[in-house]
Amino acid sequence: MRAVTFQAPGEVLVQDVPEPELSDPGDAIVRIEATGVCGSDLHIYHGRVKIEPGFTIGHEYVGTVLAVGEAVQSVRVGDRVLGCFQTACGRCFFCRHGWFHKCDSSRTFGHGATLGSLQGTQAEQALIPNAELVLRKIPAGMSDDAALFAGDVMGTGYHAVLHSGLRPGDVAAVLGLGPVGLCAVQAAKAAGAARVIAIDTVPERLAIAESFGAQAVHLTESDPRAAAREATEGRGVDVCIDAVGHPSAFDLALRMTRKCGTVQAIGVYAERAEVHLGLLWIKSLHVCAGHANVIAHVDRVLAMMSAGLLDPGPLVTHHMSLEEAPEAYALYDRREALKIVLTP
Amino acid sequence: MRAVTFQAPGEVLVQDVPEPELSDPGDAIVRIEATGVCGSDLHIYHGRVKIEPGFTIGHEYVGTVLAVGEAVQSVRVGDRVLGCFQTACGRCFFCRHGWFHKCDSSRTFGHGATLGSLQGTQAEQALIPNAELVLRKIPAGMSDDAALFAGDVMGTGYHAVLHSGLRPGDVAAVLGLGPVGLCAVQAAKAAGAARVIAIDTVPERLAIAESFGAQAVHLTESDPRAAAREATEGRGVDVCIDAVGHPSAFDLALRMTRKCGTVQAIGVYAERAEVHLGLLWIKSLHVCAGHANVIAHVDRVLAMMSAGLLDPGPLVTHHMSLEEAPEAYALYDRREALKIVLTP
Amino acid sequence: MRAVTFQAPGEVLVQDVPEPELSDPGDAIVRIEATGVCGSDLHIYHGRVKIEPGFTIGHEYVGTVLAVGEAVQSVRVGDRVLGCFQTACGRCFFCRHGWFHKCDSSRTFGHGATLGSLQGTQAEQALIPNAELVLRKIPAGMSDDAALFAGDVMGTGYHAVLHSGLRPGDVAAVLGLGPVGLCAVQAAKAAGAARVIAIDTVPERLAIAESFGAQAVHLTESDPRAAAREATEGRGVDVCIDAVGHPSAFDLALRMTRKCGTVQAIGVYAERAEVHLGLLWIKSLHVCAGHANVIAHVDRVLAMMSAGLLDPGPLVTHHMSLEEAPEAYALYDRREALKIVLTP
Amino acid sequence: MRAVTFQAPGEVLVQDVPEPELSDPGDAIVRIEATGVCGSDLHIYHGRVKIEPGFTIGHEYVGTVLAVGEAVQSVRVGDRVLGCFQTACGRCFFCRHGWFHKCDSSRTFGHGATLGSLQGTQAEQALIPNAELVLRKIPAGMSDDAALFAGDVMGTGYHAVLHSGLRPGDVAAVLGLGPVGLCAVQAAKAAGAARVIAIDTVPERLAIAESFGAQAVHLTESDPRAAAREATEGRGVDVCIDAVGHPSAFDLALRMTRKCGTVQAIGVYAERAEVHLGLLWIKSLHVCAGHANVIAHVDRVLAMMSAGLLDPGPLVTHHMSLEEAPEAYALYDRREALKIVLTP
Repeated sequence: MRAVTFQAPGEVLVQDVPEPELSDPGDAIVRIEATGVCGSDLHIYHGRVKIEPGFTIGHEYVGTVLAVGEAVQSVRVGDRVLGCFQTACGRCFFCRHGWFHKCDSSRTFGHGATLGSLQGTQAEQALIPNAELVLRKIPAGMSDDAALFAGDVMGTGYHAVLHSGLRPGDVAAVLGLGPVGLCAVQAAKAAGAARVIAIDTVPERLAIAESFGAQAVHLTESDPRAAAREATEGRGVDVCIDAVGHPSAFDLALRMTRKCGTVQAIGVYAERAEVHLGLLWIKSLHVCAGHANVIAHVDRVLAMMSAGLLDPGPLVTHHMSLEEAPEAYALYDRREALKIVLTP
Repeated sequence: MRAVTFQAPGEVLVQDVPEPELSDPGDAIVRIEATGVCGSDLHIYHGRVKIEPGFTIGHEYVGTVLAVGEAVQSVRVGDRVLGCFQTACGRCFFCRHGWFHKCDSSRTFGHGATLGSLQGTQAEQALIPNAELVLRKIPAGMSDDAALFAGDVMGTGYHAVLHSGLRPGDVAAVLGLGPVGLCAVQAAKAAGAARVIAIDTVPERLAIAESFGAQAVHLTESDPRAAAREATEGRGVDVCIDAVGHPSAFDLALRMTRKCGTVQAIGVYAERAEVHLGLLWIKSLHVCAGHANVIAHVDRVLAMMSAGLLDPGPLVTHHMSLEEAPEAYALYDRREALKIVLTP
Repeated sequence: MRAVTFQAPGEVLVQDVPEPELSDPGDAIVRIEATGVCGSDLHIYHGRVKIEPGFTIGHEYVGTVLAVGEAVQSVRVGDRVLGCFQTACGRCFFCRHGWFHKCDSSRTFGHGATLGSLQGTQAEQALIPNAELVLRKIPAGMSDDAALFAGDVMGTGYHAVLHSGLRPGDVAAVLGLGPVGLCAVQAAKAAGAARVIAIDTVPERLAIAESFGAQAVHLTESDPRAAAREATEGRGVDVCIDAVGHPSAFDLALRMTRKCGTVQAIGVYAERAEVHLGLLWIKSLHVCAGHANVIAHVDRVLAMMSAGLLDPGPLVTHHMSLEEAPEAYALYDRREALKIVLTP
Repeated sequence: MRAVTFQAPGEVLVQDVPEPELSDPGDAIVRIEATGVCGSDLHIYHGRVKIEPGFTIGHEYVGTVLAVGEAVQSVRVGDRVLGCFQTACGRCFFCRHGWFHKCDSSRTFGHGATLGSLQGTQAEQALIPNAELVLRKIPAGMSDDAALFAGDVMGTGYHAVLHSGLRPGDVAAVLGLGPVGLCAVQAAKAAGAARVIAIDTVPERLAIAESFGAQAVHLTESDPRAAAREATEGRGVDVCIDAVGHPSAFDLALRMTRKCGTVQAIGVYAERAEVHLGLLWIKSLHVCAGHANVIAHVDRVLAMMSAGLLDPGPLVTHHMSLEEAPEAYALYDRREALKIVLTP
């Protein structure tokens, strides 16, 4: 079958690879009908995430179930399904606490040996381990484009909001309006934020956030901290979601958030950085970080998408064929797209 | 000044009473500009709540600050304000835990000696103890009709949803579509419920709930339990808000709610009743009950109303003058109104 | 192999039954070395729980792993293990939320077709489905007698305390001092309760509770409500655990608990009963109910037992051989024992 | 009256100052009978906290009520009382949420104009604003030495544990065994920690922690991270309390804590520092920080001290007279004391 493989930094290839086979009673095989290109894929593309040349990449997917192992009952052959970007065992210490994203034997699609040697989904077919945890049927009437988001980017925006402790009527800020940040804007509005201050430097992204009901504030041409104060009688926002993953964003988040508020860092941090611990301390802030627990949230995310409360549709800027993957990556790398959907 | 007083079951009178005077540094006096008639007032009208003849009734109000004690800084003379239906001391065991509604020395407006001998707000003026906890400025652009709800009925609907533990994407049911139930429908939608099943027997109320985005289900002509199952793959609703206060509603709530779900009883219970404890137990349900902690919620409720996420406007069915209070009570008693606003 | 089977109300038999065999990759087979007789077994013995004649009963057990399916890695052949009283799938809606006790396909040992047709553990061997969720290694130095409790009675006492929301320094009451109530007393003390008021009518049980650090209060010869008031400046206890399961206990719990407190009903309710909903409502109480989520708690329970913070040792009043099971049940039925441990 | 005043870095003076007078209906005046010297006082002594020369310092105190304003009912003239180290208004946004430690008009005793110009308690008398929130009666049988801790250091240890989210059976680590760290060790044990790993470099402090039931681990001569792994099957501790306030402690906390665990930074941070955000992120940690909300906790802390679950007695190493304050500060500065109690 055809699949997109990593070759070298800046180089992906569409090539023939072996079809997957069931190897465990909990496995399923899905015929991929749409698969996204995500910011995480760009980390691989740039060589920042180590991965073996020839490994199939991609982790956002919808499709039709081709085969299931004997332990799989929640989905059946022929079902249209979407899936989460990672698997979990369902039995370890972390899974028993519901922290599926930190499962001791979790595997992430398309990230090579580092994250469990699980072939990616930018291919004609994919093997899905522990399918009952990972797959969900696509609700009636939902497009592939939308469903694609539930198990990755929208699930991530939802996670950021849920873990921020936002209560209906709170004021939230979202820093960084890439796909995750924009999904967090939607999720915060849908969860009852009285106001969402959405911050970025790209006018197009600010405009999308505004169309989602946020108050768009340019990072440098306007004054995000003043906007936070103005919206809260001077206190600062109740919760601040950092969807950037850069120390300057983290610092701004600490400054914009009121005493006893929460900074939720969904943006990826991988290194050491200078942090104003004094600010964190004197304001009695809470900080939570890390990638999303999508397996835990995907049912509710789907329910909200079905109800029209979350709608990733406006984020899809490009449709291309799987064979065009090299062009898609180049285009995404030039920041000309928010979300590209590939069709095998 | 003129005020509406209780005289006897079924009889209220508009009469002259003394104007209030500041007696504590934390007091304020408010010139009442609009005051609502509420379901609780009907309990008094029916003689079910004991109250001294001649006592001024009413507890929903907006107006302008006429005077403040020296300890009051958060509002000033001339401010347009709304207020909560009860006061709290801010210092006792319960207030220190944020349970202002259960303050050991709480006083409720217009409920006679039983609830603290605090004259009601269906009058030209009202004395407001501990005004910093009880009063809030009306946000710019908000009508009196809307503001009136924040400190009572809408705060109550919000409380029911917040205490139900509803998460965005959950499915909720609301039993009973009087003003509190309808506000709970709005609050549940605004808090991200994927679906709200709204149940009553009155077509007009079902229609209003539907206009708020709920799925309207007639209690007897349709099948609420089937609707709950249909919306949740057979599990039952995640949370069920009982805004009725009758054992049959409580029983339906226990039946409609999924295992490990929550039944929130905001509807008033005052007596013993038969309850299916076996159902409660085998389904591992949570139950929470009691009237709303409006002082704790009123800031966020106002923020949501300002943002248009909550809008009590459609609930106001009648405007009358304070002098027409006897007719208003009679009309309300005949269930011909959802909410009557009196103007002194 | 030899096993204790239900025959008819009041009649159990020790007879030969087939040895279990692995049938799923997640299964394990355990050679039972000690197995308890529990209050739930008495419900079967009395015919109140329907079960097929000839079915093996019992659900408390420790032993040595004889065989494991290929998916089982957390325990190995030869490990000394204890187990939980029920199984869970680890994949359904309820398991994904960590509510293993309400798993859609949960099976309870020794309760016949009603609860999943899983043969009991009062036998020489037992088949353990989904062994990674259900079994734990016995910590070094822990006796069989103690380990036996972790997966059932002590896990249940722990659950009651955890779900009551008890904070360190709170005052708790425990109604009913059978094995579960006494374990709840220990768990409440270990969790930092400043005072635990332990209530029963049996002097021996009151004495054990006192030896665990509780304040023992005779239900009828003393005044539990006065004790609650005395311990809390008149407010009532912060949390009340009902380990009885009788409407009179539930009523006492509602009365003893302070405003905004929690009543945790771990005692079994199966029927309708009159409940003072007015009390529940006016005091803004929380009620939670249902059997314990032992799979979720067993690691922490074991850790506390290893550290000596929980010690079920004093509850074991009798050791008997498996062959003596009929005498054991008769003795337990006469309430002459707190906990009987059978040895195959 | 006599009082200890700050003069210059390294110089305190016992001098005559005016007696306090009631100025608000919520005030009380307390005759100080014992007052502690605390680590925060040392910050003043070192000139790191700016304070006016001649200002009375100190914020730990017990004594007898000499006078109360007319609004004070919870304590009366002649009552033996202890107090919290700071005041709160009970009415602002933060107080309404129960975050008294972040009250918009909070005042801290003995910290000069920066923290509200409230004269300190190392004096013969002290003025206590909002006495109903700040003062508590000393429970019968409790010594001055013990009571002194409830409103400051022990309340702080309790806060650290409560905010860490520790559940009974969890494994905790405490970094830094000064008075706050040692109180946190006690609080963690009392809250049901199965094991507390207590880390410092001072053998005497390690020995005290061990006597409190902790596993003492020398920071440099032993291996704290290995101890954490050993206690948790390699996962890391569930919660880690940083009672040091130095970036190296924060870093160790991030490393010792398991995925999805909590780092609670009760130790004071005032500046920027390099933090391994990558570790925070990849482990999905929670961080909470800031000083203690003692007003919220003091009732439960007192209840635990009364019950003997918390006992600060062993921390008091020196008793001196108020007149000896200069020697006391010098001695404390040389780290020769854990806690010095001054008697006016």
